[in-house]
Amino acid sequence: MDAPLARHTLLELHGCDAALLNAPGDLKALLLEAVRRGHGTIVTDVFHTFSPHGVSGVVVIAESHVAVHTWPEHGYAAVDIFSCGSTLDHAAIRDWIRAGLRADRVESRELTRG
Amino acid sequence: MDAPLARHTLLELHGCDAALLNAPGDLKALLLEAVRRGHGTIVTDVFHTFSPHGVSGVVVIAESHVAVHTWPEHGYAAVDIFSCGSTLDHAAIRDWIRAGLRADRVESRELTRG
Repeated sequence: MDAPLARHTLLELHGCDAALLNAPGDLKALLLEAVRRGHGTIVTDVFHTFSPHGVSGVVVIAESHVAVHTWPEHGYAAVDIFSCGSTLDHAAIRDWIRAGLRADRVESRELTRG
Repeated sequence: MDAPLARHTLLELHGCDAALLNAPGDLKALLLEAVRRGHGTIVTDVFHTFSPHGVSGVVVIAESHVAVHTWPEHGYAAVDIFSCGSTLDHAAIRDWIRAGLRADRVESRELTRG
């Protein structure tokens, strides 16, 4: 059997700072810095704020993508870290985002793709 | 226990048309039409071509996102369909992309988030 082509980490972050989850500029800065700390190469990003609340953000990286969707009313954020190759440090990205969002509790699933 | 906040479908599409997997314009048209058929509301999109081959694309939708990463050299595409609420028709999106990429084989995982 061939090695998987990509790794995918799915994070459920609970008990986050609700104001941060509704601040697209802060979320963008947090995700971009997390990607840098994971040694990712940023290609582009898009962040969108929903009415009445919530933000969706995707950072396209040379290794694939990091995405966040937030539910400020639940103090919850879903984060996906998807990468081909073995260079992206998923744990470093997770830890930076977890600390930045001040999450009380994080569930992590590690899947392979391809 | 509260209902999950979001649904996430992870697709592994094998045996795809390799030329299509390396054509960002065609992939973009395919994903946008798939989202429309799934009753999604398109917010914005970003598609990026890698050297020597492969495309990453993300469509941000009001319901969350649809992402694709392709490996033309393996005839493989990974697709993620992530949505809050219950209105997005994941199966319609999956079927449209599967047909469009002419995939021989599709593995599908359905996860809940939040």
